[in-house]
Amino acid sequence: MPSFNPPLRTLMGPGPSDVHPRVLAAMGRPTLGHLDPMFVAMMDELKDLMRSAFRTKNRLTIPVSGPGSVGMETCFVNLVEPGDTVIVCQNGAFGGRMKENVERCGATAVMVMDDWGKRIDVNKVEEALKANPGAKALAFVHAETSTGVRADAEALCKLANEHGALTIVDAVTSLGGIPVEVDAWGIDAVYSGSQKCLSCTPGLSPVSFSARAEEVVRGRNTKVQSWFMDLNLVMAYWDSADGAPRAYHHTAPINSLYGLHESLVMLDEEGIEAAWARHAKNHQALRAGLEAMGLSLLVDEADRLPQLNAVVIPDGVDEALVRKTLLANYGLEIGAGLGALAGKVWRIGLMGTSSSANHVTLCLAALETTLVGMGAPITAGASAEAARAVLFN
Amino acid sequence: MPSFNPPLRTLMGPGPSDVHPRVLAAMGRPTLGHLDPMFVAMMDELKDLMRSAFRTKNRLTIPVSGPGSVGMETCFVNLVEPGDTVIVCQNGAFGGRMKENVERCGATAVMVMDDWGKRIDVNKVEEALKANPGAKALAFVHAETSTGVRADAEALCKLANEHGALTIVDAVTSLGGIPVEVDAWGIDAVYSGSQKCLSCTPGLSPVSFSARAEEVVRGRNTKVQSWFMDLNLVMAYWDSADGAPRAYHHTAPINSLYGLHESLVMLDEEGIEAAWARHAKNHQALRAGLEAMGLSLLVDEADRLPQLNAVVIPDGVDEALVRKTLLANYGLEIGAGLGALAGKVWRIGLMGTSSSANHVTLCLAALETTLVGMGAPITAGASAEAARAVLFN
Repeated sequence: MPSFNPPLRTLMGPGPSDVHPRVLAAMGRPTLGHLDPMFVAMMDELKDLMRSAFRTKNRLTIPVSGPGSVGMETCFVNLVEPGDTVIVCQNGAFGGRMKENVERCGATAVMVMDDWGKRIDVNKVEEALKANPGAKALAFVHAETSTGVRADAEALCKLANEHGALTIVDAVTSLGGIPVEVDAWGIDAVYSGSQKCLSCTPGLSPVSFSARAEEVVRGRNTKVQSWFMDLNLVMAYWDSADGAPRAYHHTAPINSLYGLHESLVMLDEEGIEAAWARHAKNHQALRAGLEAMGLSLLVDEADRLPQLNAVVIPDGVDEALVRKTLLANYGLEIGAGLGALAGKVWRIGLMGTSSSANHVTLCLAALETTLVGMGAPITAGASAEAARAVLFN
Repeated sequence: MPSFNPPLRTLMGPGPSDVHPRVLAAMGRPTLGHLDPMFVAMMDELKDLMRSAFRTKNRLTIPVSGPGSVGMETCFVNLVEPGDTVIVCQNGAFGGRMKENVERCGATAVMVMDDWGKRIDVNKVEEALKANPGAKALAFVHAETSTGVRADAEALCKLANEHGALTIVDAVTSLGGIPVEVDAWGIDAVYSGSQKCLSCTPGLSPVSFSARAEEVVRGRNTKVQSWFMDLNLVMAYWDSADGAPRAYHHTAPINSLYGLHESLVMLDEEGIEAAWARHAKNHQALRAGLEAMGLSLLVDEADRLPQLNAVVIPDGVDEALVRKTLLANYGLEIGAGLGALAGKVWRIGLMGTSSSANHVTLCLAALETTLVGMGAPITAGASAEAARAVLFN
């Protein structure tokens, strides 16, 4: 069987995003042992870089050795015990996954439901907090990758804090693309993914726990149901704050951590505010181009994520054929709709390295000519200039 | 903060082992989307390569998106339900981890204990199976990384099958280094690690479930407590045997999977029997050199793992200083003792790429001169020739 040589794609789906050659090069550097002093020093740098991205001083800030779903499950299994009540907001696919997590911990999920593509209704959350005074936590998705909707994380965390509930926040698609202010907003547990706006390869989940959340983990009545995700054990490897030597827990994914380190170094070089501004600008350029074609975005303007654009599919268009054609002709990947939005939207990601003027320009041109070729009722010839006017003014 | 440039080490500890440049190069290839048709084709190749390494036709043969500990937990949380009884053999660190897994599933672990460094006593296992007629499974470690002991997996599986118990086998350190005959031995669930005798980077865990084990997973009374590890969900992404399209579960660690693919292609090129023979020969060469120095191995000859050599530390030697000196002078990593064997043995790994004549020769020379320099009571000057006589005859 021959070696696998992947084709060169342009990744503009819901993630993974394009990985910068610097990060790919880091992935291929020589492997060290997981207790090597040089590797341990790199781990300390990595924690500091993550704290900077999360805007936190939280001691417990580590990359979990698995994809974002493991980061999610790490937050729930450590903070939630059988019999607890957790208020879970759902307005897309990932709120539903939170519900699964709560229930598999033997706890009750009180659901606050909003339509796919609509924002989380803060008033309904307040009602749920009032109706469940002993709720252990409020859990919500900051950036719903399935819809492109942003949550008002600051307001939701404020409410939870007022009601004495912990906050568990999904920042998989938000970190690095829009502000995630862990300390300023009072987030207790947050997880992200390496392969979205950080533009690292998939497989790692940065997480951060507040001092209060750490206390909850240490003071549990029951053992964490997952041995692998038990932060009481994991921390003995990632932290030696009390001067004790690091204890082996599991073998860290060394080379993937090199990649995450490099992607966070690049974010640090750019400056996180500059990265947020870049994501905002490229989104406006894509939006201008799409509107010039006569296409529209699903989400209300105030709630849009710049890094994940849900584009309404025009009537009569074979959406799968469009994606297939973009992939075949341009090596360009955009995302299909998921769940309730399957067949109704495309999801165009402008995340990390994939949030650039060239990505916007290529995507608009490729989409426009593909739609024209299929006889779709769009306006041709104006999208490139509409985007340029935003990008280069 | 600068990019991280790791030093070039020679990895001869308990894993990770040295990663071949072909595998490192694969890690740095362009990232594809996790539903890209080219990536999906690679996934199918990867499953076939794993089946070949595990010597199985099992349909459910996939790389779990996490380190070996996640592979272990995947086996337990899918097969074990609250109230079950599992017989667990412990003669080292990883049997203890199995016990933790069983108990965190709400089940009872009946322990069959043997000393660290001694083999699992098959008679005691038979007694335990007889005393617990309804036991759901027998779990044991095939290659105890903490001690260098090999289990008689064939005999243990035969016993379990006779008593109607499933078998859960830890092959983290065995796969690729010694025979792991999943079908011939009747193993029901097996997990391995990417970073041992496969010499891929750490972070992935190949697992395989027999048809019988798959039925047990599908017929559970309770939901699997881990959403991430629930094979009922994971399989919808990794398999489309019924013709249904692959369903998104989590974003696969694309580049790490490239690495595993390449390491398995290399194993396929060499031939797995040839890899076993190579591991056996290099072990004999290391052993000859160590014995020429007057050093001895902890484990009885019949039970030794060729890929993990527990070397008894001579009296009066500062074992940590030896490891530190080897790392400082030669960039050579060997492992410390773990748990009950801390301070008593070094663990010298000859795994995958690190199982070579040059690794053996360098390790012996570096160890000998370091020990001589520290005034240790060893015989100098004979180890290289003792190893050569095994290697090049």
